[in-house]
Amino acid sequence: MRDVAIVGCGMTRFGRLEPSLLELMTISSLRALDDAGLDKVDAIYVANMGSITLNKQSLIASALADSLGMVPVHAETIQNGTASGGSAIKNAVLAIASGLYDTILVTGGEKMRVTTDRVLTDFISTMSHFEAEYIHGITLPALAAMFARLYMRKFGVKQEHLAMVAIKNHENALKNPYAHIQQKISLEGILLRPESRLNNPIISSPLRLYDCCPTSDGAASIILCSVEKAREFSDTPIMISGFGQAIEVHAVHEREDPIVLKALKLASEQAFKMAKVSPNDIDVAELHDAFTILEIAESEDAGFFKKGEGHKALEEGRTQIGGDMPINPSGGLKARGHPVGATGVAQAIEIVWQLRGDAGKRQVEGAEIGFSCNFGGFGTNVLAFVYRRGD
Amino acid sequence: MRDVAIVGCGMTRFGRLEPSLLELMTISSLRALDDAGLDKVDAIYVANMGSITLNKQSLIASALADSLGMVPVHAETIQNGTASGGSAIKNAVLAIASGLYDTILVTGGEKMRVTTDRVLTDFISTMSHFEAEYIHGITLPALAAMFARLYMRKFGVKQEHLAMVAIKNHENALKNPYAHIQQKISLEGILLRPESRLNNPIISSPLRLYDCCPTSDGAASIILCSVEKAREFSDTPIMISGFGQAIEVHAVHEREDPIVLKALKLASEQAFKMAKVSPNDIDVAELHDAFTILEIAESEDAGFFKKGEGHKALEEGRTQIGGDMPINPSGGLKARGHPVGATGVAQAIEIVWQLRGDAGKRQVEGAEIGFSCNFGGFGTNVLAFVYRRGD
Repeated sequence: MRDVAIVGCGMTRFGRLEPSLLELMTISSLRALDDAGLDKVDAIYVANMGSITLNKQSLIASALADSLGMVPVHAETIQNGTASGGSAIKNAVLAIASGLYDTILVTGGEKMRVTTDRVLTDFISTMSHFEAEYIHGITLPALAAMFARLYMRKFGVKQEHLAMVAIKNHENALKNPYAHIQQKISLEGILLRPESRLNNPIISSPLRLYDCCPTSDGAASIILCSVEKAREFSDTPIMISGFGQAIEVHAVHEREDPIVLKALKLASEQAFKMAKVSPNDIDVAELHDAFTILEIAESEDAGFFKKGEGHKALEEGRTQIGGDMPINPSGGLKARGHPVGATGVAQAIEIVWQLRGDAGKRQVEGAEIGFSCNFGGFGTNVLAFVYRRGD
Repeated sequence: MRDVAIVGCGMTRFGRLEPSLLELMTISSLRALDDAGLDKVDAIYVANMGSITLNKQSLIASALADSLGMVPVHAETIQNGTASGGSAIKNAVLAIASGLYDTILVTGGEKMRVTTDRVLTDFISTMSHFEAEYIHGITLPALAAMFARLYMRKFGVKQEHLAMVAIKNHENALKNPYAHIQQKISLEGILLRPESRLNNPIISSPLRLYDCCPTSDGAASIILCSVEKAREFSDTPIMISGFGQAIEVHAVHEREDPIVLKALKLASEQAFKMAKVSPNDIDVAELHDAFTILEIAESEDAGFFKKGEGHKALEEGRTQIGGDMPINPSGGLKARGHPVGATGVAQAIEIVWQLRGDAGKRQVEGAEIGFSCNFGGFGTNVLAFVYRRGD
């Protein structure tokens, strides 16, 4: 396969934002084009989950292309739930590898804060199995809570460990001007003092408010390019040196072991194999921490720590910036925010900035090889990527 | 680019159907797999527009893969409005061309008749431009009606010509066991007798009920394969020898000429160029006749007839089976039906059956090269394909 590099990045801040979906996606796209010094591309791939349901716009890739003045460019929309961003990047990589295109703009975006929490919970719940889960009222927080309960029982993970993920990621987000949440929290402040728990209510036991990512608006864009042309657009192209994807049995209760993220494991293994590296070679990773427990579980199933030992690594500070395996320096979904279609693309951007040495106060020193994984549903359709500096 | 062939086809009948979206897609997928003699593929690409909005299922590609027993296969969903089918085929072709996969199942499906006409009209209207059209209440029938009005004034197209498209396509559908509409109609029966017009009321003047495609449920699947492996799975592989895509300015009133389907023109030209053929070489075509006027306009802008002369060719019987340029032998969207995500795939299937000589009573004799075009929005994002017998 023909190699592909990332030569431009741009995003909006994540949060409760005023611009429309199309405006957010236009802004992030222009920033990425500007970063690459391009004013047009051969194709546009949009990652989005809710444009029809939440924003009444089904031809969002065409609308974006028109808004960017790129008519009659080829334009596609990829929908893979919360892994739409990862899927769009993968499909764009394949499209360049096919030889049809040399440059592609991938833009993920979501405008979620246009409706009630009830509608949004229903919207997100559509990722569950329709007959076995959705119609019985299961939600993603409920699935994550049962998962956390099993993890606590089996591996001795404590409520405090979950909180430590949130504390670390809030701390990192304070160094990321694009992050939705800009708030320092502490164990005392959200858990240990009885009165502080009032501000951190249970969402689905044992998960509390600070164990869940926020609902965000936002957009993120990257420019992909065939490796032969990468130096035309960037002095520091970042190679997508491996990727993988796998799906898991849809209904969680039918899985072989409900606390092994098998699709994530397989997708990561494929990505490492294609990139010819091992988890030990990774300098920085962005994981899909929609719930705090997921960062712990993913850090194990991606191969960074032994199963059941992710919470110990966390406790020892190994996953902090400055630790030996920094995870979610951006703040992750937990604190950078989670505009669902944008997330997979934002993960790629954080890794690019880290590998370029452009991550400012949250820079992981000397990072050369990065990893991200993007999680659709409850580990149902997972994409993983390995990135490497192009020099 | 590596060449790609279609080695298996299967679909459900289109219509008001009892099975769920997932069941419909599973049935058509199994039929296509069976046709190719395969029990698994390297990846699944799903084409769908309304699974979240209408059916509360966002990870529909994963659900299908699970239902087919293909976990942990790669699975993607492509959403391009009514052109989702064409976009899924195109992305699958690129994915095979990249070298990552050898075999892909492309399944388009839609379960629309689960809600009211009002909700469905709104759902389809999301393909219009949000700020310039949608929020002012414009619908697709309204856009098609204005388009028809201009066509009538400029080219002398009459109400009777529109009806002739419907009559031809209903006639063809009577020979297609998969078609939604199985009803012979005549000029007298739907237009000329005053009392018959009561059964053919105006939807958006000048378009009447029989000028509009029905709302259908249904699914359609094809198996794509690298050309080197095609003979393993089929004695009569059909090559995708060219394809094209283009978008047009989103808001119809901002287009250079609102009755030229520029995106369709460009997409068709790209497809012909890649296939190294001209419109004159095409033996059979499936066009996107969501409204009768569109078949006439598309037959011109795809290059089969001069602009303004499509209605004359229709009048002379040239577009019937047996004519020199048969269009929509399947019955088209008008009579085979239009489950939106399935349509682009069903078009490909009809061409494959025609080129294999398997189209039964609607066979176009000696067909060797076929064409289809799939239309997203009101000509906003269009895909075109040229197909050829593999021998």
